[in-house]
Amino acid sequence: MSSSTLDYSQDPKRPQYDLIIRKDKPFNAEPHIQDLVKHYITPEKYMFVRSHGPVPMHLNDSHSITIHGGINTKQFTVQQLKTQFKKAHVMMAMQCAGNRRDGLHRVKHTKGVIWGAAAVGNTTFAGCRLRDVLHAVGVVSFKNDLHVAFESVEQCEETNCYGSSIPLCKALDEFGDVLLAYEMNGKPLTRDHGYPLRVVVPGYIGARSVKYLKSIIVQDHESTSYFQQRDYKLLPANVDCEKEAEEYWCKVPSIGEFNVQSFVCYPPPTQNDHDMNKFILSQGYALSGGGRGIQRVDVSNDNGETWQVAKLYQPSLTTSAHIWGWCLWTIQLEYKGYPIVCRAVDSAGNVQQEYPVWNYRGVLNNSWRTVNL
Amino acid sequence: MSSSTLDYSQDPKRPQYDLIIRKDKPFNAEPHIQDLVKHYITPEKYMFVRSHGPVPMHLNDSHSITIHGGINTKQFTVQQLKTQFKKAHVMMAMQCAGNRRDGLHRVKHTKGVIWGAAAVGNTTFAGCRLRDVLHAVGVVSFKNDLHVAFESVEQCEETNCYGSSIPLCKALDEFGDVLLAYEMNGKPLTRDHGYPLRVVVPGYIGARSVKYLKSIIVQDHESTSYFQQRDYKLLPANVDCEKEAEEYWCKVPSIGEFNVQSFVCYPPPTQNDHDMNKFILSQGYALSGGGRGIQRVDVSNDNGETWQVAKLYQPSLTTSAHIWGWCLWTIQLEYKGYPIVCRAVDSAGNVQQEYPVWNYRGVLNNSWRTVNL
Repeated sequence: MSSSTLDYSQDPKRPQYDLIIRKDKPFNAEPHIQDLVKHYITPEKYMFVRSHGPVPMHLNDSHSITIHGGINTKQFTVQQLKTQFKKAHVMMAMQCAGNRRDGLHRVKHTKGVIWGAAAVGNTTFAGCRLRDVLHAVGVVSFKNDLHVAFESVEQCEETNCYGSSIPLCKALDEFGDVLLAYEMNGKPLTRDHGYPLRVVVPGYIGARSVKYLKSIIVQDHESTSYFQQRDYKLLPANVDCEKEAEEYWCKVPSIGEFNVQSFVCYPPPTQNDHDMNKFILSQGYALSGGGRGIQRVDVSNDNGETWQVAKLYQPSLTTSAHIWGWCLWTIQLEYKGYPIVCRAVDSAGNVQQEYPVWNYRGVLNNSWRTVNL
Repeated sequence: MSSSTLDYSQDPKRPQYDLIIRKDKPFNAEPHIQDLVKHYITPEKYMFVRSHGPVPMHLNDSHSITIHGGINTKQFTVQQLKTQFKKAHVMMAMQCAGNRRDGLHRVKHTKGVIWGAAAVGNTTFAGCRLRDVLHAVGVVSFKNDLHVAFESVEQCEETNCYGSSIPLCKALDEFGDVLLAYEMNGKPLTRDHGYPLRVVVPGYIGARSVKYLKSIIVQDHESTSYFQQRDYKLLPANVDCEKEAEEYWCKVPSIGEFNVQSFVCYPPPTQNDHDMNKFILSQGYALSGGGRGIQRVDVSNDNGETWQVAKLYQPSLTTSAHIWGWCLWTIQLEYKGYPIVCRAVDSAGNVQQEYPVWNYRGVLNNSWRTVNL
């Protein structure tokens, strides 16, 4: 569907945001990088917005969700989901797969919105557990190769409507914390963030947390949506155009969990040398996918020659296998004229690599070098 | 306990192995690297053995396991576990946290058995599900911060007996596949591999798969064992001796899942240039922790300047979140005089970094450069 056929005139006004607009129609915006570290729980004004089309209108609590559970099909209004199921909470980092695409785009042309390093935030969500809703339609056991597909009301530039899927085992996992959310940061979802109902999938790329939910289908294959099959995949480096990509989409797995990530938010990359004091308090974020916490953030002020260990703020850290929230870090260090760089180590010992591993769709960039090559 | 007080005279004879002995007492041995890629399921003769003391004697199916489940305590003999619980199977890669310690030891002295890159293997296990056994003693729900501690009969050089723990949520996870195993590769466990009963924890470092199981305790803290608290931790790079380590043990989390890993098994690192053909079939393994599959292995014949995508053999690959088995890979390439190097990308987009991130205990080394620095 070309952009000319979609109507953005009813998109919300957005005076409350303090965001850099990366694309206007559809609306895609991220905060200034140094604002990200001001709050452990990202307020909405600093929360990135990722849209694929006009923001749906005329939805409210009487909006009805269809759930195809294999044998049974049921419908629930948002109001029914609110009243018939126990309310659950999750605090989680939401990160776009394209976060830091700019770093790959500097290596070679990539396809997609050119995000900086702030297409990520850490918020709380409340809603009902997808697991409970699936149980209510009779989906209690599983075969390993089943999937839960989500369809959205959202009309997109790329295709009819937004859709995506996750493995059923993630959806049913009693420790997976997948919600059908109706609140963010203690308030009803706003239109930009999926009102009246969205999926949130902790530990997975944001693309799986489908907004404006319309239907849920348990099926024996992944979502056939454009966004599951022909997007959000880590193509090998030899694929560098649409034509080359054609034969690879079906060979490359769709992304679920994201990789270990961190970034220096202060000083921001645009800071001029002459503004810098000799000793600075550097700050940033770190996170990893799949519930893996951050065990260490190393920071270097000498171009990666030596590393110092940052102080971590990660209140969700337990020895549990599942940590969905991000980690903010600080370190006092001498500024030596090099860009400050950081590399995180997650609970499984995964470390960020030094140089970008370029890929055509510009996803999952987590290299610790951030300068031009 | 010093080695002089432990008696190794009753250790099994081992004529069936084709292994390189890294330490004699206790017995620690790994196969020749090129043997690892001969079989997708590693036969016992090529399976690494990790011991911390003399192999326990006089154990058999009447050996009794005590399970403290909080309120209830029960005992089961191995025979009862075999007959009273459903038999389950798992195919999984077992990897020592110290696999490839030699690569870190070349950077700076590390503490531990100096393993090469073959302290890893891929076998099948059969046994009962730990989840079912915990249910049988009344452990059905959980608090996120509970742990399951395992004690072993094995007397160790370092301390009284071997012990370790995992989070209760991993133990109870219906997709976690933690077993109390009595078979490996379709046969009863041999003494070196934990006869009559061992824990196997898929996706975690081998240290958590406790052999010669004696007891299981559900508790509100990790195992207090030496092997959970003062070993198998990723210390920061500034810690380079026992004295320095003292203040860090309690600050650094114990390792559970392992990181993304791969290695070139053929040509082996010891191969001489003049033995090499111009075109070779390079082979190796790749794996990642936490059920993350391998989505790509890049191989370079020009010192990391360019990368080619290897062909993967990973029959356990589904789109599920949980892949416990390893991946073998092959690629036909030109030999240009440089050591062949590889880097794997796991399902979460984690990539091996270029240079070793040195740590005193020499654990979780997964750098793609393998030569001396």
